[in-house]
Amino acid sequence: MSHQESPILFSRLGQEIASPIIVDLMARALANPNLLSLAAGFTDNVTLPRELVRRYATELTQEGLANEPLQYGHNQGRQRLRELSCKAIATHPGEKVQAFDPSSMFITNGSQQALYLSIQAICDPGDIVLVEEPSYFVCLEMLKGLGLRPLGIPCDDTGGVLADGLAERLKQLDAAGQRSKVKAIYLVSYFCNPSSRSLSASEKRSVARVLLDAGYQIPVIEDAAYRELYFDAPHPAPSIISMPEFDPFPKLYLGTYTKPFATGLKIGYGYCTHSEWRDKILCIKGHQDFGSAHFTQAIIERVLDAGHYSGHLSGVQKHYARKAQILDRTLHESDLKDVGWNWATPKGGLILWLRAPTGTDLRMESNFCQGCIERGVLYVPGDLCFSSGKPWHCARLSSGALPEDKLREAAELFVAQALHQK
Amino acid sequence: MSHQESPILFSRLGQEIASPIIVDLMARALANPNLLSLAAGFTDNVTLPRELVRRYATELTQEGLANEPLQYGHNQGRQRLRELSCKAIATHPGEKVQAFDPSSMFITNGSQQALYLSIQAICDPGDIVLVEEPSYFVCLEMLKGLGLRPLGIPCDDTGGVLADGLAERLKQLDAAGQRSKVKAIYLVSYFCNPSSRSLSASEKRSVARVLLDAGYQIPVIEDAAYRELYFDAPHPAPSIISMPEFDPFPKLYLGTYTKPFATGLKIGYGYCTHSEWRDKILCIKGHQDFGSAHFTQAIIERVLDAGHYSGHLSGVQKHYARKAQILDRTLHESDLKDVGWNWATPKGGLILWLRAPTGTDLRMESNFCQGCIERGVLYVPGDLCFSSGKPWHCARLSSGALPEDKLREAAELFVAQALHQK
Repeated sequence: MSHQESPILFSRLGQEIASPIIVDLMARALANPNLLSLAAGFTDNVTLPRELVRRYATELTQEGLANEPLQYGHNQGRQRLRELSCKAIATHPGEKVQAFDPSSMFITNGSQQALYLSIQAICDPGDIVLVEEPSYFVCLEMLKGLGLRPLGIPCDDTGGVLADGLAERLKQLDAAGQRSKVKAIYLVSYFCNPSSRSLSASEKRSVARVLLDAGYQIPVIEDAAYRELYFDAPHPAPSIISMPEFDPFPKLYLGTYTKPFATGLKIGYGYCTHSEWRDKILCIKGHQDFGSAHFTQAIIERVLDAGHYSGHLSGVQKHYARKAQILDRTLHESDLKDVGWNWATPKGGLILWLRAPTGTDLRMESNFCQGCIERGVLYVPGDLCFSSGKPWHCARLSSGALPEDKLREAAELFVAQALHQK
Repeated sequence: MSHQESPILFSRLGQEIASPIIVDLMARALANPNLLSLAAGFTDNVTLPRELVRRYATELTQEGLANEPLQYGHNQGRQRLRELSCKAIATHPGEKVQAFDPSSMFITNGSQQALYLSIQAICDPGDIVLVEEPSYFVCLEMLKGLGLRPLGIPCDDTGGVLADGLAERLKQLDAAGQRSKVKAIYLVSYFCNPSSRSLSASEKRSVARVLLDAGYQIPVIEDAAYRELYFDAPHPAPSIISMPEFDPFPKLYLGTYTKPFATGLKIGYGYCTHSEWRDKILCIKGHQDFGSAHFTQAIIERVLDAGHYSGHLSGVQKHYARKAQILDRTLHESDLKDVGWNWATPKGGLILWLRAPTGTDLRMESNFCQGCIERGVLYVPGDLCFSSGKPWHCARLSSGALPEDKLREAAELFVAQALHQK
């Protein structure tokens, strides 16, 4: 008699977790090359640094290198890579060079892991993390997957944080006895995925002031994954690390080499000003993988050290500027605005954020979304980017992955569906 | 007036976590090249596959490859790498080729991440995981870091599982009302780190029978990280995946390309027979990093696909066999046995497990350990490999990292301390 395999009683986390949308979107895009994806956050294959990776992979596989890159490295990541990454952040407008100390930085499997680890260290199930509206949907899903409650802070139509709204939200939390549950605020402040908007220095100062006035000296997490992908000029606001208004707060700044360099090398970092928080993060990383791949770290370190990074970046910026323009123009050349759709022309990043007339339903299960898929185009329904799953009339379009002609075609298919259904 | 940075109220996990010993050991070894480390689990730099990595990194950075390796890939890992890895497992003695399906495999940042994810999916704080004694100390620390209770199952002096002892332990758990807390059993069954012992097929069958008889159809995790690092011959026991006695159990098999190929590429995998468990694991991985580095996966895939892996492995096996012999001989040529020390000559892996006379204290804070450090040699105190932190008279020596002359010197320093203190 054969035994039936036993069912498993999953953990609380295991029971509640749902498959991340991003995994589904990436799989769809990879599985069906005929479906034009304005959804998946891939970079453009033509921007990938094949020459640089080949050159330094070759150099790094020579015999007898110190700190052998095919060997294990430190849990925290390569010292020189951390030094160079600190220097790179410090070159952005308004940054205080002396503010960046490599011992506060840790290297991770993309900045996503840095975010995950940092949240594990400070949040228990049931806790609240304040987020912009709209916010990065992968973060929202991750927070929910850990049993947490992402809570939107009031923002204007373009994604700008409303200081008064934030103050009011904190009061409501106090009144509801939830103050002690609020563990962090998460801001995507440079070319936000999805709104493509950046927070001004004055907006950030307001956030700091409102939090401080209300006695919420909570950890502030600034996700700067797209900061380097500006088109004409860098966004002028310094990071929270260099702004004195954020001195009272524990701070974590997230950066990455995936989007601006190579998604396939999967190297990102966190920069944490609070030594105890950083130490906890490193403990958890020690348990998860005791260090990211040493070889891919070493490749990026060499590219930075040899001074090739900024040249590569400059090409990438021009490329994505052109693609954002193609997407933006294709929409402008259509009748979308006439039928009540709105968007802001992106100044950086890979994303364009569209708002249909209020009341339009663009969710995954909507006729609109199904219509798009039938026409052969995929987008990210905007409701996924709101903690409450509302409103339903927004869409995230990525100009990152598709070649220029396909990008234009995809945008035209999207427009056709929008005009068909108006 | 400047504000004081706010203290953080850490999560339960954040509060309880302690810095992993492995991170400390690796950092010590990297920081002080004069300290001869028999502790850190590094591989030997001379075995690292520089030529193979260079060749395939060069091939993989050509223009226009399908499934572009510098781009994002699937969360689950490259399909071809999973196919080839399944084939590789199936070549081991006693494996059923048809038992291995690539859709059950997922690629991770070393097999450590696979272990972490799998535990997150099934264990809540306070839960129990059964482990051999001694067991892999990094796993013990990880379990404790997640708030779990690793619980040793009775083993003989050499690390062999005692079936009667296991049956008795399960009865005790039942009597204590703890049955529902027991979520998994973790076995390091090939050249165990630290005991260097392998479980025979008959021992594994006993484990399955005892668990089943007691109604414990719990997930069984088999860590086979060192399986390929055999010296003269592969260990003859098939994995739990191919043994019919384990049919009633949800199973996870862990393998890796770090130790046998390149630690610096950080690619491992899990093979999970229980589709729901695998799906949960993939969800959590989607949140943690949505996929391991595509480029390093592709390098290993090419090495396997081109048929170069077994040749590389064969050289690595010979190399580690010679080093294990040097360590074993150096101990044998001393008077260690005469003063009551014991060990088994390893047949694979990177580890030798030493037992001093009962009552000897070899812990980190012991005079013995301090004496070793003063002499310039580091080892892993064996108490770290027991869930209860006892006994104190064992030591884990790794022959992996040091060059042959230094390995001999390190062993002699260790022996000198042992004879000095007898």
